[in-house]
Amino acid sequence: MIDIIDLRGKGEQELINRIEGRNSTASGDIMKTAEKIISDVRSYGDRAVFEYSLKLDGVELSPESIRIPSSEIESAYERVNPSLIEVIRKAKKSIEDFHYEQKEKSWFSTGQDGVILGQMYRPLEIVGLYVPGGTAAYPSSVLMNAVPAKVAGVEKIVMITPPKVEGINPAVLVAANEAGVDEIYRVGGAQGVAALAFGTSSVPKVDKIVGPGNAYVAAAKKLVYGVCDIDAIAGPSEIAVVADNTANAAFVAADLLSQAEHDILASSIAITDCEELAEEIKKQVEIQAASLPRREIISQSLHSYGAVVVVESIKRAIELVNIIAPEHLELCVKEPFNLLGSVKNAGAIFLGHYASEPLGDYFAGPNHVLPTNGTARFFSPLNVADFIKKSSVISYTREALEKAAEDVILFAEAEGLKAHANAIRARLADGERK
Amino acid sequence: MIDIIDLRGKGEQELINRIEGRNSTASGDIMKTAEKIISDVRSYGDRAVFEYSLKLDGVELSPESIRIPSSEIESAYERVNPSLIEVIRKAKKSIEDFHYEQKEKSWFSTGQDGVILGQMYRPLEIVGLYVPGGTAAYPSSVLMNAVPAKVAGVEKIVMITPPKVEGINPAVLVAANEAGVDEIYRVGGAQGVAALAFGTSSVPKVDKIVGPGNAYVAAAKKLVYGVCDIDAIAGPSEIAVVADNTANAAFVAADLLSQAEHDILASSIAITDCEELAEEIKKQVEIQAASLPRREIISQSLHSYGAVVVVESIKRAIELVNIIAPEHLELCVKEPFNLLGSVKNAGAIFLGHYASEPLGDYFAGPNHVLPTNGTARFFSPLNVADFIKKSSVISYTREALEKAAEDVILFAEAEGLKAHANAIRARLADGERK
Repeated sequence: MIDIIDLRGKGEQELINRIEGRNSTASGDIMKTAEKIISDVRSYGDRAVFEYSLKLDGVELSPESIRIPSSEIESAYERVNPSLIEVIRKAKKSIEDFHYEQKEKSWFSTGQDGVILGQMYRPLEIVGLYVPGGTAAYPSSVLMNAVPAKVAGVEKIVMITPPKVEGINPAVLVAANEAGVDEIYRVGGAQGVAALAFGTSSVPKVDKIVGPGNAYVAAAKKLVYGVCDIDAIAGPSEIAVVADNTANAAFVAADLLSQAEHDILASSIAITDCEELAEEIKKQVEIQAASLPRREIISQSLHSYGAVVVVESIKRAIELVNIIAPEHLELCVKEPFNLLGSVKNAGAIFLGHYASEPLGDYFAGPNHVLPTNGTARFFSPLNVADFIKKSSVISYTREALEKAAEDVILFAEAEGLKAHANAIRARLADGERK
Repeated sequence: MIDIIDLRGKGEQELINRIEGRNSTASGDIMKTAEKIISDVRSYGDRAVFEYSLKLDGVELSPESIRIPSSEIESAYERVNPSLIEVIRKAKKSIEDFHYEQKEKSWFSTGQDGVILGQMYRPLEIVGLYVPGGTAAYPSSVLMNAVPAKVAGVEKIVMITPPKVEGINPAVLVAANEAGVDEIYRVGGAQGVAALAFGTSSVPKVDKIVGPGNAYVAAAKKLVYGVCDIDAIAGPSEIAVVADNTANAAFVAADLLSQAEHDILASSIAITDCEELAEEIKKQVEIQAASLPRREIISQSLHSYGAVVVVESIKRAIELVNIIAPEHLELCVKEPFNLLGSVKNAGAIFLGHYASEPLGDYFAGPNHVLPTNGTARFFSPLNVADFIKKSSVISYTREALEKAAEDVILFAEAEGLKAHANAIRARLADGERK
């Protein structure tokens, strides 16, 4: 089910190929289709939204039925196990607590001659949250996307989700309500993204769109980038577990399996300097997988994109981690904090034998929306800062301007911008001080 | 040259129409061309880069000639006015000082039962900087893009710029060298963006691409988003000046002119509650424009997209500002700090009669790469944080895991993720404490 790859004395290419095997080239056709849908929604608003919803989702919408009424949200509470509601509330609280710690403050500094420079932070006013249809609609994802926006101080959160004849998963509605989502609309796909970006009579225009979706949703988000802001591009996800001889093979195996059950494109990699442990992990994976309901997905995922990798040293293991840039990294070693400083690229880092990755999916508090598919090289976990915009603040006195004047004028004229130089000169020329 | 628009007792539509008149729909053809170029560079590397450079820029490149040798950078110093070199160094220092204040620190917090949660900040490793060819290649822009990356701790900054038979503006080379740019390549357009995103034999693969470019560059950046990170989408720029009866019409006019000289698509708007001042500003614009070398550009820009707007009150002026979300905002009023708290959307805010916008272009320190075209609703000035990635840090003890276990298991199973629940169970089952 999972291969052991011995990389001792070898380069990393075999491992890279296995993980990158998941990447298909984005299809130009998807881009073209999304472009057409967006342009129609931009031109015709609701009319185009309703036509595409009928054509693509098979559901007839109207200005009255597109928004989910509060009665449906209330009745969702009656259809969800009360202990799950309780757990959703507890999870929301932990997520909120962690994200409050992320909040940054506006600041200023003072310089000579009364100069004040600074940065002012303000929340975005209105944010759109895309929740995919079907089995991928997780209440935990709704919490993870909505809570940081709420903590940032966003005034209105608008959720959209593809219309389904059978209705929306009630646990998703409960999570949305608990997280503070203000309005929910039954629209999905590129037409939903376009409706949020440009606004229609029924759907409000937003400042930013977050949340995962299929290839059309991802293409549409790229295309509207700049009309509004968007979040990072989500791809197939992965875990890398670095394990030394103090690791428990059963724990490592269980964590690899928990990543693999998400998706056949998930990649689950253990990296160890201990050959015996590698053999044990392999065995444990097979034993534990046998009783899992999603063992079909798991076995495909582990066979194609999983591996237990044996390396010379834990130092080499961390090198590989920095090349892979995994979404999730577990440091199942005796002294995990000793390694933290050498980790460059990873979305979330779980330290020690008891920081199991699923803790991070639900409860610990940090966001489970993480950079996937090697993008931890440059993307970050979803964050309160993603819902904040900054403004520079510049206050100058006449004295300070006079001191800078000559330099600014020289620079502006060197760039051929005479009117820029004149804006400074006009102020020097004026003898009167206001 | 500039119209007075009286909005007293009226809505804002006339003003919005004027500013938004600048927006043309992004052409699907540009997207398609960029997509083809990117796919060729991805498949054929340097060969495609050289072919497109010959076809589109008319310059024959080779692996030897694509990189600008250090001798050319050194000789650039001899071709630049020594006082300009001095000013470039001073500007770099101010920009550096301000951006050091933006630096954030990794942090952690401790919870019950030994839990540690936090966020680790790390610089991106390698960043690509696009510098447009021709007159739009400003040394100040090179400083503003490169210095924040350097302050963030980026290890390598790679600059690209379209090849020109006549060579690159030596002041741009000096600015790049002073700002700490490590390598400079003569390649531009979508082929340059693709080379940075995927890497070729000659051009290194980067984690993020920043810097302005033409429509093909902007389309290419959107298309490679996710392969690497990109900066905000740059559009036509604007200034809004809020002026009360303490404002000096000559100052306001000079600042409107300095924005208008950039580009016929620039929009320069003054908003005042004082009808007399409006008339004076209009007059001053005409007087001052007469002697400006770029008066053709200025007159087109002001005529089409500029205005002096009269409103009932300064409060209403700020409402309009928040709707426009200008790149630059000047508060030329008696008590500018009294208004700061009500400004929601603006890239950079200049307070008082002496904080002239060109100060921010060169010297004050805050970045002049600002959200344009109304995107200050959701984008921020270029920032040290744009060159930093975050990782979540999660450390749990066995005790802490035991307390959370039941809730995590319940949530995971409610989402149908049995292997997630099992990862927690495996740890409870194990009696031995490591």
